[in-house]
Amino acid sequence: MGVVHGVVHGLCPGARLVDLTHAIPAGDVARAAFVLEAAAPDFVPGTIHLAVVDPGVGTGRRALAAEAHGQFFVGPDNGVLEWAFADPLAKVHALTEEKFFRPQVSRTFHGRDVFAPVAAHLACGVAIEAFGPAVKDPVRLQHLEPYEDHGALYGTVMFVDRFGNAITNLNASVIAAYFPKVADSDLVIEIAGRSVRGLARSYGDAPIGTLVAILGSSGRLELAEVGGHASSRFGVGARDPVRVRLA
Amino acid sequence: MGVVHGVVHGLCPGARLVDLTHAIPAGDVARAAFVLEAAAPDFVPGTIHLAVVDPGVGTGRRALAAEAHGQFFVGPDNGVLEWAFADPLAKVHALTEEKFFRPQVSRTFHGRDVFAPVAAHLACGVAIEAFGPAVKDPVRLQHLEPYEDHGALYGTVMFVDRFGNAITNLNASVIAAYFPKVADSDLVIEIAGRSVRGLARSYGDAPIGTLVAILGSSGRLELAEVGGHASSRFGVGARDPVRVRLA
Amino acid sequence: MGVVHGVVHGLCPGARLVDLTHAIPAGDVARAAFVLEAAAPDFVPGTIHLAVVDPGVGTGRRALAAEAHGQFFVGPDNGVLEWAFADPLAKVHALTEEKFFRPQVSRTFHGRDVFAPVAAHLACGVAIEAFGPAVKDPVRLQHLEPYEDHGALYGTVMFVDRFGNAITNLNASVIAAYFPKVADSDLVIEIAGRSVRGLARSYGDAPIGTLVAILGSSGRLELAEVGGHASSRFGVGARDPVRVRLA
Repeated sequence: MGVVHGVVHGLCPGARLVDLTHAIPAGDVARAAFVLEAAAPDFVPGTIHLAVVDPGVGTGRRALAAEAHGQFFVGPDNGVLEWAFADPLAKVHALTEEKFFRPQVSRTFHGRDVFAPVAAHLACGVAIEAFGPAVKDPVRLQHLEPYEDHGALYGTVMFVDRFGNAITNLNASVIAAYFPKVADSDLVIEIAGRSVRGLARSYGDAPIGTLVAILGSSGRLELAEVGGHASSRFGVGARDPVRVRLA
Repeated sequence: MGVVHGVVHGLCPGARLVDLTHAIPAGDVARAAFVLEAAAPDFVPGTIHLAVVDPGVGTGRRALAAEAHGQFFVGPDNGVLEWAFADPLAKVHALTEEKFFRPQVSRTFHGRDVFAPVAAHLACGVAIEAFGPAVKDPVRLQHLEPYEDHGALYGTVMFVDRFGNAITNLNASVIAAYFPKVADSDLVIEIAGRSVRGLARSYGDAPIGTLVAILGSSGRLELAEVGGHASSRFGVGARDPVRVRLA
Repeated sequence: MGVVHGVVHGLCPGARLVDLTHAIPAGDVARAAFVLEAAAPDFVPGTIHLAVVDPGVGTGRRALAAEAHGQFFVGPDNGVLEWAFADPLAKVHALTEEKFFRPQVSRTFHGRDVFAPVAAHLACGVAIEAFGPAVKDPVRLQHLEPYEDHGALYGTVMFVDRFGNAITNLNASVIAAYFPKVADSDLVIEIAGRSVRGLARSYGDAPIGTLVAILGSSGRLELAEVGGHASSRFGVGARDPVRVRLA
């Protein structure tokens, strides 16, 4: 929401703001966390990331700020800042010092009333310790870890992106670790009753309508339809299992 | 549209631009006016708000600029600037001085050709009087005023937001005025044949699928479905009546 | 994607970025080219336009930069930069010098990994010749040229915009050239089995529900429904023929 720009600009006029995305479906914490993880490393050190996918606003869930990977992260304690917590040196603090909040805090829009003012104060030099006590147990995003069974690697579809591609929790390094010295073309990827042979090099690497498996721009294994919307066409959705095996 | 940034930047290079929202449904003047009213107070004094929900473009409706609440407002004379007119000290001027417009003015895109250049000139210091004559009778947004009947308070759904929540014209102060010293939990809110007991404190304050009534971040009474889309689920839409009564 | 801002800001901190649009349907090169053509002239000289509608990413299609109309253009070699090539003095270069790319180039996200870094280097003063060899044969957007037959002018719907208006490849100057000294009111526009008499002066120039023909803000002939969505209501879509004749 643009009003966040107004709040930040009022408190820290020199701050430069970028809208990373407005396209996260309502309440989809896992997808927001993934988008943040995929994009944050391309921003300069010291960048402050504000994440407001916040289905629990008003229910007493904590508000957090984290310093990690040389950047800052502000958002609710629901796992959306998962990538920050993956830094073993992360400093995490609860936001309890109300003097850093908007004078009136609504029950339903902490993006404007809590997170935006805190991000502005961070941008203008307030130390993270000033916002509240250290937190040792932030809520972690539930990871469905890949596992091996009878020589096959099992993973899960994390979400479907706006092109209809199914993004899994398997990435290039996990696949390489389970299948060392195996050529891409000797792998079979199975999902929703279908089998795909080999990894495509691009989304256009097969005839229109073909289901392909590909390592996407974030390094994750994706299932995509060439020129189409894999999710609707092949009935693939979040939490569907995916299996990778030798051909 | 990003082209508005190009026009403003060309005429007033130092201006800082924020896109407040691109999510107003086509032609929904009431919703745009509400979003502007909800967001404007969080921007710094002197901010210029440009509103281009303009279904009457090309039909001869006037173009306006207003100075109100310490800020500026530019847009068509269709009620979208309603919040500005609510300031009894508002100065409102018609935009008639074509020297402040884009050299070529199309019949269908005054956002680019009239409002953006005027906003840029305002940002770079041109006084509001320079753009044209004072206007005393701007088109006001039709307000459906809440009313009382047999001890109940009646209001209307103004619009459904992107989460499916139904936003009404009733707010906290109106409800408090009609039901003084009544606890939230002693109110019943009725809409579309359903009754809701009490006001929820958050969107997550009841089991998934429950219809709740809540005072939203702008202070308006909203009807929402916990974890869902109230409008589709319960068949609630704009202009539906809502009744608040004692339990 | 906001990550493009992070990449550009990291390489050229002083660059000012504007998101022109995020609303191009996936893979719709013709529509992206049209939006770029319509918007670019309103940006200041020296502006760098980055266009990433790139269905062929990863397939070996070239990446290009162009200097034309006093501005710069960066994107894939698929026709999206068509307006740049329409400048007979355009300088077009392939992007082959990998030192200007992101250190890791993914197979699927050249917007972030190739086009954004090149745009940043252009913004900070690198000459276009430095990025790679000159290109003489960029892929041109297939234009369906208007033609005349038995005294009528024939054109095509290029795309349907988000309001449901059908935008054609006919514009004011083509119509004037075929029908010199003919009043707008003496023209009949035929599409999808329907006839429209005359050109409307605005989208509100007839009763609600009426199909009207209008010269839009970019000068193109559009078919629109007053207060509605012409494409759904009248079954009008991309590549439909349109005929203009004397009444």
